[in-house]
Amino acid sequence: MPKRVDHEARRTQIAEALLRLASEGGLEAVTLRDVATEAGLSMGAVQHYFNSKDAMLLHALDHVNRRAEQRIRHRLEEMPQPSPREVLRALMLEMLALTEESRQEFLTFVAFTLRAVNSAELAASYRKFWPELEKLVSDLLRSAREAGALVRDVDPEREAEILLAVPDGLSVGLLLGHRSRQQAIDTVDYYLDGMFGQPDQPERS
Amino acid sequence: MPKRVDHEARRTQIAEALLRLASEGGLEAVTLRDVATEAGLSMGAVQHYFNSKDAMLLHALDHVNRRAEQRIRHRLEEMPQPSPREVLRALMLEMLALTEESRQEFLTFVAFTLRAVNSAELAASYRKFWPELEKLVSDLLRSAREAGALVRDVDPEREAEILLAVPDGLSVGLLLGHRSRQQAIDTVDYYLDGMFGQPDQPERS
Repeated sequence: MPKRVDHEARRTQIAEALLRLASEGGLEAVTLRDVATEAGLSMGAVQHYFNSKDAMLLHALDHVNRRAEQRIRHRLEEMPQPSPREVLRALMLEMLALTEESRQEFLTFVAFTLRAVNSAELAASYRKFWPELEKLVSDLLRSAREAGALVRDVDPEREAEILLAVPDGLSVGLLLGHRSRQQAIDTVDYYLDGMFGQPDQPERS
Repeated sequence: MPKRVDHEARRTQIAEALLRLASEGGLEAVTLRDVATEAGLSMGAVQHYFNSKDAMLLHALDHVNRRAEQRIRHRLEEMPQPSPREVLRALMLEMLALTEESRQEFLTFVAFTLRAVNSAELAASYRKFWPELEKLVSDLLRSAREAGALVRDVDPEREAEILLAVPDGLSVGLLLGHRSRQQAIDTVDYYLDGMFGQPDQPERS
């Protein structure tokens, strides 16, 4: 089905143009025309796929999520049998704005948050995606607890909210330059040590 | 010095107009003219105080910080002798987007973050203010530890980063409507319980 592949590639091309613009200073002033120019497409081509800025933004967010998920999966595939701690660490490190790619993604989330505050449709899509992520984390914490892997008692649901808040807070410091890459990774490890104890051997970042 | 008071009031009036606009959807597309209109002032009056959007934004951020500080102080004055836990709780609750005022403030921070990524001057002001807040928190944690008030061992510097990240992460959920006010407060209390143990009596929010 060559035609379908082409549509997918085109949508991805538009989403990535939007991400580049988002990372240069927000989405408030970005128009469909700006995205078309950045993507090297005509206005009509962009409008063929997206009839509004919010529709385009939703697709870009979906693209970001899938991209991050792939990176996490890739990271985990390199480990023989990842423990809950290793899965949670991979998730937290991928959420941190450590690379140009995750920096773009974080800025897209920030821009999205600002816009979603005044858009019921965007907020609804976030409300769908975020609880799924929280559930993934709380399920991992629950199985770690059942396996006796935790050194302190946790409430899986509450702890999942905290675990997911940490990379966001640290990313702001990374972006604005008052926190180093290594500091952010060390804080993630400190947080995980508080639940799982010190690991037997140093982890690679 | 009536003249000086007047200048201060005028600057505050401008800062608050900017906050209202920020909370309606970001600052990217906001112009000095928009702020003048919102504040009920002439363009010239606004330009008399601020020669650029970033200068105005810096002042608004400073205004937000002082306003939040005053609220925290007010909250603490109502307690006879606030413990480190009570001070940290007051700080975290004031950072949560629970009221219209703190919602505006959080959105201003979000908008500021997006803009500061591409403005060395704005990022520098953040780098000055944030470590002061982290130091306040780590000092409180250190004295709590020395007073034997903590039920688990913490690294005050690392823990301060986590403590300050939590309200940010929870506020996104509050703003987008996938977390209730009570849920956010309960998560803050759960986090503090993890360090200080359960309090003897329920705390008021």
